[in-house]
Amino acid sequence: MKTLVALALLIGAVGAWADKPKNIIFVIGDGMGMEYLTAYRHYSDNPATPELDSTWFDQHLLGTVSTHPIDITDVTDSASSATAMAAGVKTYNGAIGVNANREPVETLLERAKKRGYQTAMVATSQINHATPASFSAHVESRNQYDDIADQYLDRRFNGKPWVDILIGGGRKYFEREERNLVHEFQSLGYQYADNFDELNDLTSSPALALLADKGLPFAIDEKPHNRLEVMTQKALELLSPDRPFFLLVEASQIDWCGHANDIACAMAEMTDTEMTLKFISEYVAKRPNTLVVVTADHSTGGLSMGADRQYLWRAEVVRNIQASSGVIAQALIDSGDAWQGRWQELTGIPLNEKAIEVGQNLLGVVANAATTKERNEAVSQLEQAVRHGIDLASVTGWTTGGHTGGDVAVMALGPGAESFAGHQDNTDLAKKLFEVLQ
Amino acid sequence: MKTLVALALLIGAVGAWADKPKNIIFVIGDGMGMEYLTAYRHYSDNPATPELDSTWFDQHLLGTVSTHPIDITDVTDSASSATAMAAGVKTYNGAIGVNANREPVETLLERAKKRGYQTAMVATSQINHATPASFSAHVESRNQYDDIADQYLDRRFNGKPWVDILIGGGRKYFEREERNLVHEFQSLGYQYADNFDELNDLTSSPALALLADKGLPFAIDEKPHNRLEVMTQKALELLSPDRPFFLLVEASQIDWCGHANDIACAMAEMTDTEMTLKFISEYVAKRPNTLVVVTADHSTGGLSMGADRQYLWRAEVVRNIQASSGVIAQALIDSGDAWQGRWQELTGIPLNEKAIEVGQNLLGVVANAATTKERNEAVSQLEQAVRHGIDLASVTGWTTGGHTGGDVAVMALGPGAESFAGHQDNTDLAKKLFEVLQ
Ligand SMILES: [Zn+2]
Ligand SMILES: [Zn+2]
Repeated sequence: MKTLVALALLIGAVGAWADKPKNIIFVIGDGMGMEYLTAYRHYSDNPATPELDSTWFDQHLLGTVSTHPIDITDVTDSASSATAMAAGVKTYNGAIGVNANREPVETLLERAKKRGYQTAMVATSQINHATPASFSAHVESRNQYDDIADQYLDRRFNGKPWVDILIGGGRKYFEREERNLVHEFQSLGYQYADNFDELNDLTSSPALALLADKGLPFAIDEKPHNRLEVMTQKALELLSPDRPFFLLVEASQIDWCGHANDIACAMAEMTDTEMTLKFISEYVAKRPNTLVVVTADHSTGGLSMGADRQYLWRAEVVRNIQASSGVIAQALIDSGDAWQGRWQELTGIPLNEKAIEVGQNLLGVVANAATTKERNEAVSQLEQAVRHGIDLASVTGWTTGGHTGGDVAVMALGPGAESFAGHQDNTDLAKKLFEVLQ
Repeated sequence: MKTLVALALLIGAVGAWADKPKNIIFVIGDGMGMEYLTAYRHYSDNPATPELDSTWFDQHLLGTVSTHPIDITDVTDSASSATAMAAGVKTYNGAIGVNANREPVETLLERAKKRGYQTAMVATSQINHATPASFSAHVESRNQYDDIADQYLDRRFNGKPWVDILIGGGRKYFEREERNLVHEFQSLGYQYADNFDELNDLTSSPALALLADKGLPFAIDEKPHNRLEVMTQKALELLSPDRPFFLLVEASQIDWCGHANDIACAMAEMTDTEMTLKFISEYVAKRPNTLVVVTADHSTGGLSMGADRQYLWRAEVVRNIQASSGVIAQALIDSGDAWQGRWQELTGIPLNEKAIEVGQNLLGVVANAATTKERNEAVSQLEQAVRHGIDLASVTGWTTGGHTGGDVAVMALGPGAESFAGHQDNTDLAKKLFEVLQ
């Protein structure tokens, strides 16, 4: 009898798949607010042509998404918003896969797994960071990094971990003194890569790739610039064409650059994100039974194109920046007396007298710092001055080092994409995708 | 032969109207950026229910609109963006109905007129301000207020002014020492109203209503709060049901409140705008052959919900504010020693010691100002302090007293609304509406 019911369910499921998308790719640009999409259009534009070129985002934009957590006075964090998008429930800031009563809630990834899907997650943060965690762990606080990593291994479906393919950063949470989750994953048959070159060696699912201690380096600072695209390619390559899959891709560090109010850093992350999406578009052109949904969990930094009554935003200034503000500041320190030339190389921004005075002064404070604490503070001030110089030259505005409450965009393609048109809540994204997984 | 061609064109036009919308209502929220729509959802929410209620904007949102002027490094002004939306051409900041070569370009309103449409414009600014001007005048600079007003009368189609119904502010530009355009309009058969009560007396088209010297008072400061709704009702009442119409409605002062970085002022303007749209929705429910398109020309102020690393936006603080910052500052001055109680009445925001010190200090400077110039500066500082207090309590961020470059939203309803779905340029809005008017 049980077998018959299972068989009936299976037939039902197969029947449903026939006219529903088979595969789901859910892409979250962390912190990728509306202003980032417009700024990126200007940043990525080919300056040789007079018209502004449209981006992948423009071509697939369908609507907007509200992001508030359960207490509507709060501006959301990534955990609450990711849980809303993963499980369709409003919850509190910090919640990972649990509702406001701190009870675990079923996620899209889990439902997919139960329906026989392959499951995969890719992120440029540690893979146990808030956004991916909310799809495949259930803890009261996003700060429980070790618990989240443990759950990736310890929580099981049919005796196996819920996620077949994990690609991101976070080695330090998986290789701990008291427990080595990497070895445990390997003993369950997971292939393992612990750096970018080894990623090539992964040949089959299940697989775990931890490519950094915590988050990966910023796209602007490291080769390959398109690390998210490479990681996503690998995940798609490892997924078998024989069974449907649910793939979560997080462009984690748009948010981190936003928190730092580092516009060039953010735009480089957007570049990697668009390259990833273009690759995904090519991929799904060959597999038309794939639904791709792209959105953000919130906006970060209160970014604006234009500031201080200036009706300008100089994308070309941002385009010329060669590194994140942290790397630029370090390079200035390392250059000693030649710092002005180094600044010029790394930013292309002319130094006026006042800027030279500020730079000279701050570099002096760094050089003469008596304690590590003093030095760190001075370096942090120098980094801030670097960003301030870039903001002034590019006319970029920020209101916060945290998140902001405005709606974000939703883009989609593939069968069922049209159901994301118009305005909706972030919980609605999950609800619509659960329909696909019925 | 000429008559035959004209007849053929007329039949063609009538044939086209059969499956195209007859009437067009184009609503522009000046400065109504994306963050304003989210903030307004929180501001207008019924606090008695736990869920966030959706707004008219949410229910009709279809996509986004890029707003850059012809020089893509510039952030647009209202003139350039309005000309883009009126005529489908990119032009320079300040341009009114002219292209980058300063040549007049045909507008939607003019095309409609040529097709036999009735034409009407409603605005809470002076009616010869940049946005409405771009639909029915052609001058090199938005500052040519007198020239724009003159053109409204002097430029003709079949011997009559292009706009049948004009409702807004701007008396001082129409009743000038050297020329009285009001009399000239009256001599052409225009009914005239010069204040809100007289608006009721207008009974037929053509009509001119100039309800203030320049712009109307802010919605937050005056009864009726819903002045734009009342003005729009009157315009629709005056338009004959026998012939199609093109109606432009500008919610002008969202932008002015944004320039002042006055969040309560902006939200009150949004309320009037939504009331106007709800009225329009009811109206078109009875006249289903009407296409309504709603958008913004740009965003203003770099508004953000949340600021300074606080993950909060307190809509209830904004909801309690009783007046614009200018009116609050004047009330504090008028209250003398009782200013703290007056502040409490007008804002509901508790005063801490530091705020009391700042207030006492600024009020002293105002009281002791030796010259008008000094006094004006002190009053301006007091107004700024009022806004600062409201921003701190509500956790509202701003980056500029000018405009910002981010995309804005587009909402639409009625036949053809679906053609505004997805992302598009502001010139595309005009191009799509010209199709309707073919
Ligand atoms: Zn964040
Ligand atoms: Zn403006």
